[in-house]
Amino acid sequence: MASQQAATETLAPLSKYSKRVILKTVLEGGTGLVGQTIVIGGWVKSSNEVRKEPLPPPAVAVAGDAPVAAKDVTCVEILQTRIPFFRSIMKVLGGNQNPSRGKLESIVQQLPPPPSVAVLQVSDGSCVPSLQVLVDSSIAPPIQVMATGTCILVEGILQQPTVQGKHAIELKVEKIMHVGTVVQDKYPLSKKRLPLDMLRDFPHFRPRTTTVASITRIRHSLTQATHTFFLNNGFLYVDMPIITTTDGEGFSDKFQVTTLLGKDIKKEAIAMDDTGGVTLETIKASINEKSKQVEGLKRTESNREALVAALQDLRKTNELAAQLEAREKSKSGTSVKSQKVKVEFSEDFFSRRTFLTSSGRLHLESYACALGNVYSFGPRFRAQKLESKKQVAEMWMIELEIAFSQLEDAMNCADDFLKFVSKWVLENCSEDLKFLSKRVDPTIVDRLQLLTSSSFQRISYAEAVEVLKQVKDKKFEAKLELGMPLTEEHESYLVDEIYQKPVIIHNYPKELQPFYVRLNDDGKTVAAFDVVLPKAGKLIRASQNEERFNVLTTRIKELDLPKEQYEWYLDLRRHGTVMHSGFSLSFDLLVVYATGLIDVREVIPFPRSHGKATN
Amino acid sequence: MASQQAATETLAPLSKYSKRVILKTVLEGGTGLVGQTIVIGGWVKSSNEVRKEPLPPPAVAVAGDAPVAAKDVTCVEILQTRIPFFRSIMKVLGGNQNPSRGKLESIVQQLPPPPSVAVLQVSDGSCVPSLQVLVDSSIAPPIQVMATGTCILVEGILQQPTVQGKHAIELKVEKIMHVGTVVQDKYPLSKKRLPLDMLRDFPHFRPRTTTVASITRIRHSLTQATHTFFLNNGFLYVDMPIITTTDGEGFSDKFQVTTLLGKDIKKEAIAMDDTGGVTLETIKASINEKSKQVEGLKRTESNREALVAALQDLRKTNELAAQLEAREKSKSGTSVKSQKVKVEFSEDFFSRRTFLTSSGRLHLESYACALGNVYSFGPRFRAQKLESKKQVAEMWMIELEIAFSQLEDAMNCADDFLKFVSKWVLENCSEDLKFLSKRVDPTIVDRLQLLTSSSFQRISYAEAVEVLKQVKDKKFEAKLELGMPLTEEHESYLVDEIYQKPVIIHNYPKELQPFYVRLNDDGKTVAAFDVVLPKAGKLIRASQNEERFNVLTTRIKELDLPKEQYEWYLDLRRHGTVMHSGFSLSFDLLVVYATGLIDVREVIPFPRSHGKATN
Repeated sequence: MASQQAATETLAPLSKYSKRVILKTVLEGGTGLVGQTIVIGGWVKSSNEVRKEPLPPPAVAVAGDAPVAAKDVTCVEILQTRIPFFRSIMKVLGGNQNPSRGKLESIVQQLPPPPSVAVLQVSDGSCVPSLQVLVDSSIAPPIQVMATGTCILVEGILQQPTVQGKHAIELKVEKIMHVGTVVQDKYPLSKKRLPLDMLRDFPHFRPRTTTVASITRIRHSLTQATHTFFLNNGFLYVDMPIITTTDGEGFSDKFQVTTLLGKDIKKEAIAMDDTGGVTLETIKASINEKSKQVEGLKRTESNREALVAALQDLRKTNELAAQLEAREKSKSGTSVKSQKVKVEFSEDFFSRRTFLTSSGRLHLESYACALGNVYSFGPRFRAQKLESKKQVAEMWMIELEIAFSQLEDAMNCADDFLKFVSKWVLENCSEDLKFLSKRVDPTIVDRLQLLTSSSFQRISYAEAVEVLKQVKDKKFEAKLELGMPLTEEHESYLVDEIYQKPVIIHNYPKELQPFYVRLNDDGKTVAAFDVVLPKAGKLIRASQNEERFNVLTTRIKELDLPKEQYEWYLDLRRHGTVMHSGFSLSFDLLVVYATGLIDVREVIPFPRSHGKATN
Repeated sequence: MASQQAATETLAPLSKYSKRVILKTVLEGGTGLVGQTIVIGGWVKSSNEVRKEPLPPPAVAVAGDAPVAAKDVTCVEILQTRIPFFRSIMKVLGGNQNPSRGKLESIVQQLPPPPSVAVLQVSDGSCVPSLQVLVDSSIAPPIQVMATGTCILVEGILQQPTVQGKHAIELKVEKIMHVGTVVQDKYPLSKKRLPLDMLRDFPHFRPRTTTVASITRIRHSLTQATHTFFLNNGFLYVDMPIITTTDGEGFSDKFQVTTLLGKDIKKEAIAMDDTGGVTLETIKASINEKSKQVEGLKRTESNREALVAALQDLRKTNELAAQLEAREKSKSGTSVKSQKVKVEFSEDFFSRRTFLTSSGRLHLESYACALGNVYSFGPRFRAQKLESKKQVAEMWMIELEIAFSQLEDAMNCADDFLKFVSKWVLENCSEDLKFLSKRVDPTIVDRLQLLTSSSFQRISYAEAVEVLKQVKDKKFEAKLELGMPLTEEHESYLVDEIYQKPVIIHNYPKELQPFYVRLNDDGKTVAAFDVVLPKAGKLIRASQNEERFNVLTTRIKELDLPKEQYEWYLDLRRHGTVMHSGFSLSFDLLVVYATGLIDVREVIPFPRSHGKATN
């Protein structure tokens, strides 16, 4: 122990709270560390067994003058691997120079295991490469330590490689302190290179793969970069509430938070209104039609006014159908199996209806309107059933708000932020980027460098529509006219094909933006912009928010939003209002951009999407 | 504009994204900045108006030889404030040396407003002190800018104070660029010093008070300190899921996440079992009794096994009562108004029942068992109805997990962490601490220094019980015997009275800890500890978690937990298991400790508790 103590003292940083040296330190230290005795811990990524004595060429594998039957391959092989014992076998057999297979096998089984060395590639998650660890069969049977996924904690001496490996140093184990074995046939990572989408069924094992470990380190690094950027620029960090009563945008699909389910829920039979002779079939056909329309509007994610109207319409039609159905059933004498239940939210935990927040920006304004520059970083939610590679139910967002600022300021901030974090990742994660470039996407370093150097293309919404309408060589799925939302396909084309760099699209028609975005002097467009990146798509949604009380109340009225819900928000305009702007940035998509993955679920530790919540 | 440009260049850091100089810079720069023209923005904290010409002594306030009627106080005062116009009034009056009151008033009303200077104390949230800002009445009517809460953006010249103030420098306004007025009778902060608990009804205005602004800056600083500590010590940051299907502890009150409410919920009539002749009254009395027992157990927050059993018992009795009630009602012929509703979770968003997470530690283990040292920092939830100053429904927790570590390692980490963040706050928030010491709690600096210097008192649970049973001068509300949980009262007494420093209580009986805590060799206690701080109470819950597959499955069986829910967690023991330890730290209580506030709701931007979810 004394020698280990001395050794590890020279090996800073020792992982302080686990009495082991982290592998990154060892691998970076290289040959300079040869001779030191250290403790390391980690998981076996791969392994092979090396016989201590070289195999003789097949021709030698004969017993004296009488060769073992050549077809009896098993026995020949066994003998080949036991060459030091060969003579003793001959001795046991005595004069019997041509033993039977059974006889040979029974002798071999009595032999001690052949001396060998288990050569393990061990990772502890601190870096991409593994350390080569040698375990002599006299210290532990190879079978105990060699399975992929085995955990070991061992003491050993660092030496120059005796067995060919990728690195300048290897560890010769002298003492085994812990082995956590693996049930090989049940361990999903026993198979080599499980595809990422299959891996998702085992989120608790994902970080043991080199790819997900690299993603995790880059994600961590981006988190640190984020906090550092805002600290450097005088922003205060503020936690925004997850449970909220304010419906941020008045239209998005929300999760409800409740303690009512599973308890008694008071029900109330629905009164059966006169439906004026319409048949149930007609209504059902109409519902079908309207549902399709709503789905289409949702997909564009931006035509809010139309969506709100369509949703209201659909709801009413649904209600009508339910009433009619109930009446028909009661007429026909069958029992009513499905019935509307009225939920008494006054009996819920908060005595009112509460949701999981979809955005903290409105709340964040309260803090900006007192403290200046503020930011938040937390999980946000959308109960969106649509399958998407860029949107899941639970995602982390960076949100910021700047008092005394206009849209241009938020634009500059977005630009600076992206430059800063890209540079940070390039500087701090070169090894992980190199690995992912090889394994996932060869262009990630180029793309990050593009962000650090180039200025973004800034175009107005109107210009974007103009440019896209000129496109002749591609037919877009969704038609585009001035006033219509840009789809993901349109945005990708602008970024990937036309400008080939990040694009800022600004000055949207007011119909395509939430109620709180500031109305421009033309009375038609609003002060908003999106930042669209190659591959990752729409990363940032930004806006200068309406600071004029009267304009804001007019917008709320126009959109028929529940004004009482926004009274507190209006308060910020009643008392000491100020111009301000800010944005929301999808942190998970930023990780997608930096790692080159295609599906956002690969970069989220425990992704949640429609029908999927593992663990 | 050219001069402002030059000036602000010398005033780094300029708030880059809002084209104004932040007040902290100005106030720290002091007299050295005199003569510079700058733009500042902020909110008026208080104000007063100063007449440009001094008031004459009352005796002088006479018109020539004929004094204005002394009892006519209003007119005399008006005239006193208009001394420069006095002679012109006399001129207007001509020979009439003894004017009527009406005549005098009509003359005064025609006069221009008296020249004066509005002296504003303006804050922009960047620091505790305000900047003194002078607005001459020729630039803006005082009434427009003087109300508390008014927002101004102004250009002015920095000068040495002409009007007595606290600071070495003041701003003389030359141009007003924006004024955000206040509706004084509706603005809650118009009243001076609104008590904190009343302020909570206006969470969106709270940061405009100096106290909450200071709390926010300290909270921000603790966040930065947290990330820095973990970065320095080789921890990777990992986001844990908020929506979860795993019930972390099998007993706590949870929020459910759903999209079912407000839609149709399929109901199913409850079959009426034979209740064996028991009357409804007997059962209701029993429910009352049992509810009290459960509440008692919840208050202690730790006797999990007893709580689980009591809850199950209560649930069954409740069901029985419901059945009986339904039957009685149907017998008596009244319609059944309340009926059990069976919720089909397969129709919910995730096709199963999902909750808001109460702890990320189990999930975090997956990452520790691959990457070594990991931490998370996010919101956690408890649907606890009990009113408490230390627990609300939504709180931010720091959680960490260290692979290859034992309980002692987690203890050292907790100790180091608290030392580090306390030192950080003392170094970075001295002004805010000074303010809160004066306004809230004079001992906060001492308490932070205690954390940075003293080693913690480490005692076992058994020792704690022994020590508390010796106490003669105090009668505790809850009886204490070996095996019973320590209440908040017990813990406070240990920390505040007996040891007068932070206490680590370790080695609890297994009955008082969750299933995953590692069983000690005695088979009775488990490897867990709590850190209890003066004033803030229990800040940290820590444990070495059970790495042995068989011991863990036995614990799950003993506690009758749903094993299938924990299969993924058991997987971590099946494949490559490792000793590991970690803890959860209540970040909000850490802020309570550092700021001296008593109620945790004061340090949370938008607090959520039973029946309360404002905004």
